[in-house]
Amino acid sequence: MPSDPDWLAPRLTDSLGRYTGACLAFCEPATTEEVSQIVRLCSEHGIAIVPQGGNTNRVGAATPDASGDQVVISLRRMNRIRSVDASDFTISVDAGCVLADIQNAAEEADRLFPLSLGAEGSCMIGGNIATNAGGLNVIQYGNTRALVLGLEVVLADGTVWDGMRRLVKDNRGYDLKQMFIGSEGTLGVITGAVLRLFPAPKVHATALCSLDDLDGALKLLSIARNHAASSVCGFEVMSGITLATAEELIPDIRRPFDPLPDWTVLLELSDPRADHDLGPTMEALLAEALEDGAITDAILATSEAQRANLWRYREAIVAAGVQRGAVVRHDVSVPVSEIPDFVRACDSELDELLPGVVPYVMGHMGDGNLHYHMAPPDGMSQEEFAGHVPALDARLYDITARFNGSFSAEHGVGQAKTGQLETYLPGPQYAMAQAIKKALDPKGLMNPGKVFPAT
Amino acid sequence: MPSDPDWLAPRLTDSLGRYTGACLAFCEPATTEEVSQIVRLCSEHGIAIVPQGGNTNRVGAATPDASGDQVVISLRRMNRIRSVDASDFTISVDAGCVLADIQNAAEEADRLFPLSLGAEGSCMIGGNIATNAGGLNVIQYGNTRALVLGLEVVLADGTVWDGMRRLVKDNRGYDLKQMFIGSEGTLGVITGAVLRLFPAPKVHATALCSLDDLDGALKLLSIARNHAASSVCGFEVMSGITLATAEELIPDIRRPFDPLPDWTVLLELSDPRADHDLGPTMEALLAEALEDGAITDAILATSEAQRANLWRYREAIVAAGVQRGAVVRHDVSVPVSEIPDFVRACDSELDELLPGVVPYVMGHMGDGNLHYHMAPPDGMSQEEFAGHVPALDARLYDITARFNGSFSAEHGVGQAKTGQLETYLPGPQYAMAQAIKKALDPKGLMNPGKVFPAT
Repeated sequence: MPSDPDWLAPRLTDSLGRYTGACLAFCEPATTEEVSQIVRLCSEHGIAIVPQGGNTNRVGAATPDASGDQVVISLRRMNRIRSVDASDFTISVDAGCVLADIQNAAEEADRLFPLSLGAEGSCMIGGNIATNAGGLNVIQYGNTRALVLGLEVVLADGTVWDGMRRLVKDNRGYDLKQMFIGSEGTLGVITGAVLRLFPAPKVHATALCSLDDLDGALKLLSIARNHAASSVCGFEVMSGITLATAEELIPDIRRPFDPLPDWTVLLELSDPRADHDLGPTMEALLAEALEDGAITDAILATSEAQRANLWRYREAIVAAGVQRGAVVRHDVSVPVSEIPDFVRACDSELDELLPGVVPYVMGHMGDGNLHYHMAPPDGMSQEEFAGHVPALDARLYDITARFNGSFSAEHGVGQAKTGQLETYLPGPQYAMAQAIKKALDPKGLMNPGKVFPAT
Repeated sequence: MPSDPDWLAPRLTDSLGRYTGACLAFCEPATTEEVSQIVRLCSEHGIAIVPQGGNTNRVGAATPDASGDQVVISLRRMNRIRSVDASDFTISVDAGCVLADIQNAAEEADRLFPLSLGAEGSCMIGGNIATNAGGLNVIQYGNTRALVLGLEVVLADGTVWDGMRRLVKDNRGYDLKQMFIGSEGTLGVITGAVLRLFPAPKVHATALCSLDDLDGALKLLSIARNHAASSVCGFEVMSGITLATAEELIPDIRRPFDPLPDWTVLLELSDPRADHDLGPTMEALLAEALEDGAITDAILATSEAQRANLWRYREAIVAAGVQRGAVVRHDVSVPVSEIPDFVRACDSELDELLPGVVPYVMGHMGDGNLHYHMAPPDGMSQEEFAGHVPALDARLYDITARFNGSFSAEHGVGQAKTGQLETYLPGPQYAMAQAIKKALDPKGLMNPGKVFPAT
């Protein structure tokens, strides 16, 4: 019950436990019309609104401030799959559908909805769209933005915009849905969406490769794309330290290569043709990569169980990072070809700043996206380390900017990174973003304090 | 010379010869800084600006009005390929680069820039981006929007926005480049872009299929996608009338099937792997389509010459349509699965309105995009036909709206379709578009009279 503090508490705290807010009311409308009525009332009375989906956001974007003056609109009850159109390769959904439910509905129609990320069992598609979520399949299918054909949005004054198009091509003026995708609730409340589906993948080929350096990873990526093009569906890099930590802290994780290499890449191909054996393609590309010196060894999964086992390394290093106290907060991107130099620059400059700091690096390298985390030097307490974090963060963002990168590749800005947005976004872009905000939310009532600082 | 009326005339008339304007000055800046200076001066003096690329626009978007008060900025001299980054799969270009030159630069690096359309030998990438151009490869690679990673834009006040990112993932607030893509010069002048490249396709499989109806085409599309997924790179439908006309009017065009079927589909697959024979995939999918009754016959190209020959049909029907006097102006899209019912509705309702009117239909069916043209009934003069066109147009657009479609799938709005935009765009969307225009171009000096009517 919304009036019960125990019920309310987890809904007013973000998923990382960094922000806790209060609210004037916590609303759970069941229809677009009800959302519209709430927004209209709030607009008339000058009350700020915080839209919330599965509350899995990493930057506090769905948590109200502490004033108790804001109204939270949860989309949770709007969880209907409106229609699945297999021959159109589209699905129409309410914004409160859990991502995994959409994946399942697509699968039942022998289709794939490719968005996939750790929180898929609880995150909701409205939030995925509002944050332009990334995840594991971006290399093959693009970000959430690339998967959205149409949107239904309750605008800041309560007006319902029915933009539920199922059109691949539509050049009737500005493509306004693009402004709501990735706007983190600051322009309106997304209540529905039309999403693209794809032929369901039927076969996979998966390999774990050992590498001496990230230059090799870059070569491997190019070789993989030349051989397998858009069949490349996973390209996850993991540093030696992350695997060593997983081996130490996670039960049942055996070292895949002995000695552990400096870098490991989990490479996966997929294809929707059940009779299409990807084995020869994978073998050919690995042979070329070995010959080329891009990789030093490779393990090829020959069964579904072995494939699952290779993916366990990727999952284990995330869990191990948390146990080790790695500060899990960096989600940067740089041009793919810059990644080797970028990581070398970070490793050396951060070590200069705090000798012994442990870079804990993994990432979706095919997208140029690295989760460059840091763990405290051996023997340093979390408390002491915390004192160094702001300087380490600032340096990492500076290096990212120097490499023409982004301080937020997939997690967005929320309330956690409004300062970085002001600092690192080119001036004209920041001013334009402010102008757009003012144009679509003139009263400034849509999720204030997110993306832009609270005023 | 700009002062020479013969030099100027073709630059002040649109590619279809429907609009002719005048100008205060015709500027050909060579650098972004020069564009900035011109825009700044115009902004200070309240002078309207019309950006122009290759002047191949179909809706008069690059033609100034007749007042002689507007300044045209041609990007023609800004035609430098700034860099090709093969390992990043990106290319950075000036806005005035001719599309074919970009295709060639990509090819030299063993990469593909997939945007491809009839005007590629003279259209410029800045215009392609400003109109979110479609063309032949959308089914596989998406519209121009999907190919743009970064933009450099001179904003309405002359400020240069350097948004030349090479990032696949960047969630730093609103994705503002999306507003300029497809804005038809009404928000700023695009001066540079970072574009995505892909592995160059090395093998093709091409077939021409005969069909009894468009329901069969829909089935064929689904079968093709199930067998070949993203390898499907072309799916062009042509009505029997268009082929009969081509046979009659274009030299060397032989009838592919006898008797001519009601519908023909040109289906093409491609793959970047040179050793990857697509023949078996094409044969398997055609066999299933034949067995399923989706198609009645098929011709499979077994050489590059035969492949070129099959594509000649697609080209010939365009040329024949012009000779026959087909009113070449309809560029609509509907959800893919609605196409059969949509075409039946158009055929019957338009014939009711003007008995004997000849539907001349071709299109990129995989994208839901049809060029539904009309030719005069037998024996009716072009002049008499012209009198019927407004009513036929209005009906076609009404039917399109009924099928939740778009009156402009790929050509945009320009000055030709501002009325349709007001009529058919949902009210909240039109109001939002106006708000965005006001936010980014408060003085209304960027290509006035385009997208929105002249005030």
